[in-house]
Amino acid sequence: MATPFEFYFDFSSPYGYFASTQIDALAAEFNRNVRWRPILLGAIFKKTSAAPLTELPLKGNYALRDFARTAALFGIPYSQPARFPIATVGAARAMLWIEQNAGETKAKESAHRVYRAYFAEGQDIDNLGTIKELADKAGIDATLLADAIQQESVKTALRNQIETAMDKGVFGSPFIFIDGEPFWGFDRFDYIRKWLRNETKPKAR
Amino acid sequence: MATPFEFYFDFSSPYGYFASTQIDALAAEFNRNVRWRPILLGAIFKKTSAAPLTELPLKGNYALRDFARTAALFGIPYSQPARFPIATVGAARAMLWIEQNAGETKAKESAHRVYRAYFAEGQDIDNLGTIKELADKAGIDATLLADAIQQESVKTALRNQIETAMDKGVFGSPFIFIDGEPFWGFDRFDYIRKWLRNETKPKAR
Repeated sequence: MATPFEFYFDFSSPYGYFASTQIDALAAEFNRNVRWRPILLGAIFKKTSAAPLTELPLKGNYALRDFARTAALFGIPYSQPARFPIATVGAARAMLWIEQNAGETKAKESAHRVYRAYFAEGQDIDNLGTIKELADKAGIDATLLADAIQQESVKTALRNQIETAMDKGVFGSPFIFIDGEPFWGFDRFDYIRKWLRNETKPKAR
Repeated sequence: MATPFEFYFDFSSPYGYFASTQIDALAAEFNRNVRWRPILLGAIFKKTSAAPLTELPLKGNYALRDFARTAALFGIPYSQPARFPIATVGAARAMLWIEQNAGETKAKESAHRVYRAYFAEGQDIDNLGTIKELADKAGIDATLLADAIQQESVKTALRNQIETAMDKGVFGSPFIFIDGEPFWGFDRFDYIRKWLRNETKPKAR
């Protein structure tokens, strides 16, 4: 099997959520797996002087409209969260710990639950209680998890993952690498298909 | 025939150029026409505190790669201009004047020439000589055109068009309105297809 996709995302990113619902199926079309890598856009935006879409003049209203429209056009359950964006450091650390301790499949299942809770079920995923409850539903020991995400090793693992992402040029969510080629945005999924089907693999400049 | 698409674009926008090569064909799929509306992103970015993609940290390198890759994936001739972005006030005024004086078809033909000259043939379209030469090739009186784009009425027409665009929420290029619904980006062409095919027309919130 060829090299896996690397899928960087923030749990507070609507386009990251849309991507999460389809990326494993997309990769499977090309006999690939996907490595999921939660990051914190807040930390990245600080270094790039960027801001959340919805806080930008004109772009903000358009973004809200495009979130809802994209979800409807692709048949993805969506309800714009009242609190948006939201802190996702707990959700990201939880996913890293679950992956290390219960494996990749369980970590993805848990991540799907977190994304749905925030973008389709009106839950505040910055709340530790919510994180614990979602973990419990996925069959994870919630008490152990709550302790774990305060451990220095888990904090460091997330910081390192964000540093690595920035070093590779990640500036938004979703951000996908395929054999080193970067694709930013759920709207690049069809470009990825075209790119992977193209024998000549058009490269940039 | 249903209401035409309104297609806002800047002559210095790569994604605007990509859109220009396909938008009339896209509209024709749905038995629609397209009204082309040149604007100046520089004037809009001043009010929205935005900046050209290529000047943003991390995003800049990605953008250059995505321009070339998108062109290759869609089979559009493209060569990254050495001077980029470039002033397009002359090109935009020229298109307005040509549309008023030689009609819409001639104006679009001329606009295609300007876009190709800049993005595929390495010409500097901020140069009045280039604008005149391209007009001449399209069968436009180049001397008359050169005089016209200095007239107050043409200057005002462009300023008004940009004001109208901003009032409608335009903040980038290409920006397309279909029955009032806004679509930003060449990467929204497939979304437009889905949206126009969908009887229920999913609206934002």
